[in-house]
Amino acid sequence: MENHKELQEKANLVRKWCLRSTTAAGSGHPTSCLSAADLTTVLFDKYFNYDLNNPLNLHNDRFVLSKGHAAPLLYTLFGMAGAYPLEETLSLRKFDSRFEGHPTPKFIYAEASTGSLGQGLSVGAGLALLAKREHIDNKTFILLGDGELAEGQVWEAANFAGYHRLDNLIAIADINRLAQSGPTMFGHDLEKYADRFRAFGFEVIEIDGHNLQAIDDAFQQAMSKQQGKPVAIIAETIKGKGISFLEDKEGWHGKTLDEAQLEKALAELGAIDDELRFHLKAPTTTLLPVHSNGIASINLPFNKEETYPTREVFGLAITELGKDHKNIYVLDADVKNSTFTLDFLNAFSERFVECFIAEQNMVSVAVGLSRLGKIPVVATFAAFLTRAADQIRMARVSEANIKFVGSHVGVSIGEDGPSQMGLEDIALFGTLPNTVIFQPAEAVSTAKLTALMVDHHGMVYMRTLRSKTPLLYDDQEVFEIGGSKLLRQSSEDQLTIAATGVTVFEALKAADQLKEEGIYVRVLDCYCICPIDKTTLLNCIAETLYPILITVEDHFAHGGMGDFATAAVTSSERTLQVKKMAVSHISRSGKMEELLEDAGISASAIVNMVRSSIPVPITP
Amino acid sequence: MENHKELQEKANLVRKWCLRSTTAAGSGHPTSCLSAADLTTVLFDKYFNYDLNNPLNLHNDRFVLSKGHAAPLLYTLFGMAGAYPLEETLSLRKFDSRFEGHPTPKFIYAEASTGSLGQGLSVGAGLALLAKREHIDNKTFILLGDGELAEGQVWEAANFAGYHRLDNLIAIADINRLAQSGPTMFGHDLEKYADRFRAFGFEVIEIDGHNLQAIDDAFQQAMSKQQGKPVAIIAETIKGKGISFLEDKEGWHGKTLDEAQLEKALAELGAIDDELRFHLKAPTTTLLPVHSNGIASINLPFNKEETYPTREVFGLAITELGKDHKNIYVLDADVKNSTFTLDFLNAFSERFVECFIAEQNMVSVAVGLSRLGKIPVVATFAAFLTRAADQIRMARVSEANIKFVGSHVGVSIGEDGPSQMGLEDIALFGTLPNTVIFQPAEAVSTAKLTALMVDHHGMVYMRTLRSKTPLLYDDQEVFEIGGSKLLRQSSEDQLTIAATGVTVFEALKAADQLKEEGIYVRVLDCYCICPIDKTTLLNCIAETLYPILITVEDHFAHGGMGDFATAAVTSSERTLQVKKMAVSHISRSGKMEELLEDAGISASAIVNMVRSSIPVPITP
Repeated sequence: MENHKELQEKANLVRKWCLRSTTAAGSGHPTSCLSAADLTTVLFDKYFNYDLNNPLNLHNDRFVLSKGHAAPLLYTLFGMAGAYPLEETLSLRKFDSRFEGHPTPKFIYAEASTGSLGQGLSVGAGLALLAKREHIDNKTFILLGDGELAEGQVWEAANFAGYHRLDNLIAIADINRLAQSGPTMFGHDLEKYADRFRAFGFEVIEIDGHNLQAIDDAFQQAMSKQQGKPVAIIAETIKGKGISFLEDKEGWHGKTLDEAQLEKALAELGAIDDELRFHLKAPTTTLLPVHSNGIASINLPFNKEETYPTREVFGLAITELGKDHKNIYVLDADVKNSTFTLDFLNAFSERFVECFIAEQNMVSVAVGLSRLGKIPVVATFAAFLTRAADQIRMARVSEANIKFVGSHVGVSIGEDGPSQMGLEDIALFGTLPNTVIFQPAEAVSTAKLTALMVDHHGMVYMRTLRSKTPLLYDDQEVFEIGGSKLLRQSSEDQLTIAATGVTVFEALKAADQLKEEGIYVRVLDCYCICPIDKTTLLNCIAETLYPILITVEDHFAHGGMGDFATAAVTSSERTLQVKKMAVSHISRSGKMEELLEDAGISASAIVNMVRSSIPVPITP
Repeated sequence: MENHKELQEKANLVRKWCLRSTTAAGSGHPTSCLSAADLTTVLFDKYFNYDLNNPLNLHNDRFVLSKGHAAPLLYTLFGMAGAYPLEETLSLRKFDSRFEGHPTPKFIYAEASTGSLGQGLSVGAGLALLAKREHIDNKTFILLGDGELAEGQVWEAANFAGYHRLDNLIAIADINRLAQSGPTMFGHDLEKYADRFRAFGFEVIEIDGHNLQAIDDAFQQAMSKQQGKPVAIIAETIKGKGISFLEDKEGWHGKTLDEAQLEKALAELGAIDDELRFHLKAPTTTLLPVHSNGIASINLPFNKEETYPTREVFGLAITELGKDHKNIYVLDADVKNSTFTLDFLNAFSERFVECFIAEQNMVSVAVGLSRLGKIPVVATFAAFLTRAADQIRMARVSEANIKFVGSHVGVSIGEDGPSQMGLEDIALFGTLPNTVIFQPAEAVSTAKLTALMVDHHGMVYMRTLRSKTPLLYDDQEVFEIGGSKLLRQSSEDQLTIAATGVTVFEALKAADQLKEEGIYVRVLDCYCICPIDKTTLLNCIAETLYPILITVEDHFAHGGMGDFATAAVTSSERTLQVKKMAVSHISRSGKMEELLEDAGISASAIVNMVRSSIPVPITP
């Protein structure tokens, strides 16, 4: 054991910069940093192997700050490791600073954006799982707060880490007793947390989180072979530790010291050698993520006479793509037989991750995989992606390159009823800036869009259908981000119907029926919902007899394709009318046809809408 | 102990109807019903007290089917109790049936809509907590599947039940080893589940879930005084129990028997007296929820010279309303000092529910409270309501009367950065049919809208602001659902700016600046985002020189107020242009003013937008 005096001085230097940077910022959470200063100082000083020049070196250890509000601690630790001058952290929370209020990708050493609590253990589990799968001998450390241990996702992650025997994962729980608005559920009753982690399959070490020797011993023990178990170090700590007027005091969460208080605090820390630094050992080898190159193309043989459920086609396609694209990882939440990712499991079990029924953890595990260059494909029922809405939001903030596939969209699923219907999913993904949303209506487009999805760097969401649909396209057809396909078009078109997914077929049926009455309408397959094909929509409005656009979708009325289309066509001045046909009430159990009718998005509803939209001809 | 033979026959009669109804439906989950048939038969035959004529009688015991896909079991149990002829359950999953694929409010005996897994224990915890708070001596039983025990929310709920010492709650875990797509994480290793529940504060009883005597003993034990601990009965069961070709077999989840298989199965069940029924004991007293009557009015004294953060005004208002409205319950996830529900806690601690940092459980607990006539007010950061998106969705399917308040909306929160910014919340609530969304910009409207929110039956969401804003209205001003306020108006208005929340002040600043240049614009405060004030919007477009509508909001561009406004004004044919100003990229840390500028929703951005929108006058 090295000199404790120097180690303590380093810990106090960490404290000093956490206090200085938050006071400079005028906001932040200094006391949440102070409770973990000793724990992380020992970690960075003695155990953390990292190549500062290559944050993505797969051999690096990983440090995930789950309690994201302790961001100044993270910034101080890497500054103390020599990544940048510590003075730079005084720009904390300023507009142009990489040191944001909570970690974001602007800080390249952050494994993920955190700040919505309870997500870090899952991200760490993703990183640790990847190391296991790729036979890399490193450790993943996750610093958790005690307040966030009430979040269910932490226990989804613990379950996952225990189940997958992630003995390269070390969770450090900073039990400082005080949350934002008062004491935590269990205060300093460490046994409560120890029992929980043990029950979820962890090796548990309980310590005084301010005793440097105990901390060192704990890491020593945690680093040694754990026989298939992840480790949790449960540390009793004091919020604000080191500063008498902050220690264990309520009312100091998210509060910073003023200049006078700072001076007093720094005096309490005593004389510190400001030149003390951590000297991280870099791994002896460098292994960087390998990105796939080139456009993925795919050609699956479809029979023109047959019908296919697009969810099944997706399963075939992602498995086919998996042959060349070794970065594809597929994640499931116990619906692989419904989303058809079962095919991928059968072909590439080493790149399949069973997450069981725990969607939140699944998404944050994918964030971890994405961090190290993998292309995670997360597939479940569209309805159940809402379970992970916050994790998806944070994945976007993390700039994660995740592909989401939601099956069983809309009322068209039929008998299972409203709890299983994905009717908010376009809104969920559509709000997140620069997310691409596909909804292929049939097999050919599904296969091609699956390839496009994998190739595109950035978040992509694809909706798939439960029931079978006939082919609309042949193998030569080209699909693109921002594209659409005109399926019916004539010089006599009176208006345009923009449909997507299952409603494309309803629109086609309606168009055929109307044609018999002598009413020609244009039908557009909006297979790409976001970005929507503005040019084609505008052309349609300009070229049809009436400037009427009817949008039809199996999604709730607000936040769906109709709103994307409407926004596109109203952005410059023109005369028009948009009729948004979508689901406007909670659906029920029933046959698909009954429910499309009930929701007012069936062929007959479209026919009626077209008839009522066309101005009555003036009889001479 | 009563005659086991008859009890076994009753259990088999339950099995018979679960099989018959699912075969009639042609879809459903018969094997998931069969594993729990013995457990629930003993419960309904001997322990479950319930007044079928008054499902809402507060003295009733409560039965929550968390594993919602076992709905046919629920329907059979209440049929066997005499609520309706069992033959009626043959309408299962049909369009007009109250027996939906998963329970919904159409089935009045369902305590909540389930089917998205892992939510029932939370709903039950809400029901049990209410009984505790109102000193009602009943029991709440929750039937859980083993697959759903991987959902983090279950452990949030367990944590909550343990913490609040809900010894009137009995969880029954049906450990049948098989989930949808394969075996569960832990198969029949009951200890894994027992350890987990014990660690979370439960008294645990492990049994063979098909041994009627053991089941009876377990309930007996569970019903006796539990000294402050909730109880979990962990039952080893067999999926498909009772039918040889279904028992413990993979590939039978969500699959029904054909007629021939049904015949074979019923033969295996042997001779059954079809007249056997449960005879539920009704509570001796009837106590029904009391609904508040009359319009809540509120008058808080505000000083015209002062500025107020609307979140703080909400705290004052809900506390003031709490005096007369005894049904108001306030729920918090450890941010009460930020949302200002702390005021309510201080005034009415008996109607305040601290849920700690576990938003999913908080929302489903609220569903339980709402079921029995309470008006739950769920308040947290708007960003963190996304954590419970699935629970909010299911609350809507449950027709729960919950009031949601999201604070810290938009980039205007400043330094904390993107993880803390509520920018998807309008989309989240706006997609759900018939949800009312308010965003008051200042104190007076906040107080009045808080009263309106409480009075309105149905889901309401209100956004509150972090920073202070000046008053816009005086005490006499009237606000209504679907309303808006014209803040600037003249006969020379060239176009209209519709703003909401913090952007109202940016729009006013812009209008004042433009006025100095001789450009008059109309400014509308859209305090009600959904339903939006279509009439006023249309009038504005008709009355201004140009048919240009500029919408400005501190929310992501898709799914926000702008989309509601655009949909409203394009629903019939007219000439117009809509410029949607909203947040279009991930924000960062910085000062509020910097971030409004960066997001392009500041006063100066509005000024530029107006200038560039007005056609250049043709110089003669």
